[in-house]
Amino acid sequence: MDQSDMPHRTWQLSERARKLTSSAIREILKVTERPEVISFAGGLPAPATFPAERIREAADRVLREAPAAALQYSATEGYFPLREWIAARLSTGGATIRPSQVLVTTGSQQALDLLGKVLIDPASPVLVETPTYLGALQAFSLFEPSYVQVPTDEDGLVPEGLTPALTAGARLLYAQPNFQNPTGRRLSLVRRRALAEYARTSPFPVVEDDPYGALDYAGTPLPTMLSMAPDHIVHCGTFSKVLAPGLRLGYLVAPEELHFKLVQAKQATDLHTPTFTQRLVHEVVKDGFLDEHIPTVRALYRDQCEAMRAALEHHMPQGVIWNRPEGGMFIWVTLPEKIDTMQLLESAIAENVAFVPGAPFFAHDAARNTLRLSFVTVPPARIDEGIARLARLIRERL
Amino acid sequence: MDQSDMPHRTWQLSERARKLTSSAIREILKVTERPEVISFAGGLPAPATFPAERIREAADRVLREAPAAALQYSATEGYFPLREWIAARLSTGGATIRPSQVLVTTGSQQALDLLGKVLIDPASPVLVETPTYLGALQAFSLFEPSYVQVPTDEDGLVPEGLTPALTAGARLLYAQPNFQNPTGRRLSLVRRRALAEYARTSPFPVVEDDPYGALDYAGTPLPTMLSMAPDHIVHCGTFSKVLAPGLRLGYLVAPEELHFKLVQAKQATDLHTPTFTQRLVHEVVKDGFLDEHIPTVRALYRDQCEAMRAALEHHMPQGVIWNRPEGGMFIWVTLPEKIDTMQLLESAIAENVAFVPGAPFFAHDAARNTLRLSFVTVPPARIDEGIARLARLIRERL
Repeated sequence: MDQSDMPHRTWQLSERARKLTSSAIREILKVTERPEVISFAGGLPAPATFPAERIREAADRVLREAPAAALQYSATEGYFPLREWIAARLSTGGATIRPSQVLVTTGSQQALDLLGKVLIDPASPVLVETPTYLGALQAFSLFEPSYVQVPTDEDGLVPEGLTPALTAGARLLYAQPNFQNPTGRRLSLVRRRALAEYARTSPFPVVEDDPYGALDYAGTPLPTMLSMAPDHIVHCGTFSKVLAPGLRLGYLVAPEELHFKLVQAKQATDLHTPTFTQRLVHEVVKDGFLDEHIPTVRALYRDQCEAMRAALEHHMPQGVIWNRPEGGMFIWVTLPEKIDTMQLLESAIAENVAFVPGAPFFAHDAARNTLRLSFVTVPPARIDEGIARLARLIRERL
Repeated sequence: MDQSDMPHRTWQLSERARKLTSSAIREILKVTERPEVISFAGGLPAPATFPAERIREAADRVLREAPAAALQYSATEGYFPLREWIAARLSTGGATIRPSQVLVTTGSQQALDLLGKVLIDPASPVLVETPTYLGALQAFSLFEPSYVQVPTDEDGLVPEGLTPALTAGARLLYAQPNFQNPTGRRLSLVRRRALAEYARTSPFPVVEDDPYGALDYAGTPLPTMLSMAPDHIVHCGTFSKVLAPGLRLGYLVAPEELHFKLVQAKQATDLHTPTFTQRLVHEVVKDGFLDEHIPTVRALYRDQCEAMRAALEHHMPQGVIWNRPEGGMFIWVTLPEKIDTMQLLESAIAENVAFVPGAPFFAHDAARNTLRLSFVTVPPARIDEGIARLARLIRERL
């Protein structure tokens, strides 16, 4: 049967499925797979940072030493030694995180899915930064919340903005305090303290999503909110940026009562994260490997960040503004108001350069003259060329 | 701070989370981790069937030959060569399954989560067998359906039972045609044909979940419904029973229009299944390994199934009824009506033998005198001892 003859089934979908649209990032990534495109769009870590040999040796050891356990079903909560390791690593600044608070997830994206499942009903308010991580909007949207944007500035979320009127009925507040995706902004220390204090009595959990905390280029890390209020903050983390994203290994730390519900939701969702990848990552990290590895990742990305900032400085016309991220993977660019970056992207793709327009990162009232640049995937030499092309296109529109 | 001093946070949970209860299986498995317990409860594949050496070699090859790709983010749909392999393997009986219909999932449990997300609204009817797979009830229940039980008998689901009155408004029909969990029943050929025909015009998808199809002990496999109506049946499969469950690798085959929505839901849920485990499994299976491996799994389980049937025959008192499964992992036992198997389980645990009571497998109107025995985890010598203990407890209650 020819494909065109196939019946077009019109089964009734759920309300949430009918609202689903493919993300801009997803569609863009398809185009930027062409090798001639200089893509600042994807947040793909540089493969040079993957400790492939170390991972290969660890896989070998795990499958020689504990094959039956590594290949068998295992507990929904995760591999206990890995949970212990995560808890110990997060126990900083005098705080104690208990392994019983830790749930291993299939990437930190799954942490967002589980939080959505356990906390969000249709139309219930969810507080997000302005702008916020697109993947969080995608994950939470399956549970049909009503988004409320919390004001932000160059120092991140503004705690004073959390007024009773704004937060009424909220089910959670979602924030990325370190080098936020998409803006690269870092929440200041004083605001972390204020938000952690707020979390002690807030009628909803404050979720600290921290994929980029280890990528601190200035060497001046700020404490996590989890360490300031370990029984009140919900914390998400991942091995994607410090080891390898293709392992899909993340974690979710929550007060025990919420942890218990999250475990039940996870069991229904995928039983557990692959036993093999959990044991593999534990084998890689258990003896302090990250402390020698992360500085090499930082050094590489710091150079690429510098290269991009230098290129922006060199090529961009007046009226274009960008920030100076102290870590992470992204620079946030604001263009003169008349330029719509969704339209700009079409011309950019034609010139074989790509970025992500800022609009999809806003829950409401998108600033359509913004865009996100990733500096981690493209090597420095091509960064300059890509930014030059982009600047040319922007100049044409001024 | 002492654990008892900790604040008890009372954040508002979602409606679905408040309804969540821990599964009986989950609580039971905790007890049965004690080595002295002869557990017929878990559906854990025998570790002797895991081709650990083959998997180790494949992991080594993948991480030597394509480390950057294997450790990087990848497409939500799954690793294309694996999708091609799955499509080819499912193209039997003259049917052609296209790779574009295949979505790789994080275990087949995730396939159920994604189907729930895309098809189920609160209170919408979902058709299930009587009894049905507990994990499906758990997955779908997060989306708060209203379950409708379809009549079944020794030959599986009764297609004539799908009357317009019963199926009105249904969003999906969920069935396990091969060696169903928990009953071990197999849907007859004539009923497969009837159900596949029904699926051609039904206003909702017929979901064929097939984790056990390869474990056909009699050597008389029946065709899948997918092969009978490839553009109408939704099919779930897994590598858990034929390779290793700790890899959490499954797949979901659906008509393209539904496939597209499932991919969107998967992207929001966990971006993609680990790239490394996908490439690893493809490396293991691509040259026909399963055709030599599966017969060894079958032979082992056939012997254990025989051992359990012999033990039941030898020890069980009159009035106890069980089936003769032609494959899979489970035997379904019906006791005289006055025995409640939830109560029996408490005594059984005290005697260091375990099973799963039948009640949790029913969406409604549980037959409380039923129980599920798994014959795959316990070696034959201990099977006889465990069944003898169980028979003694049953005899005491008659």
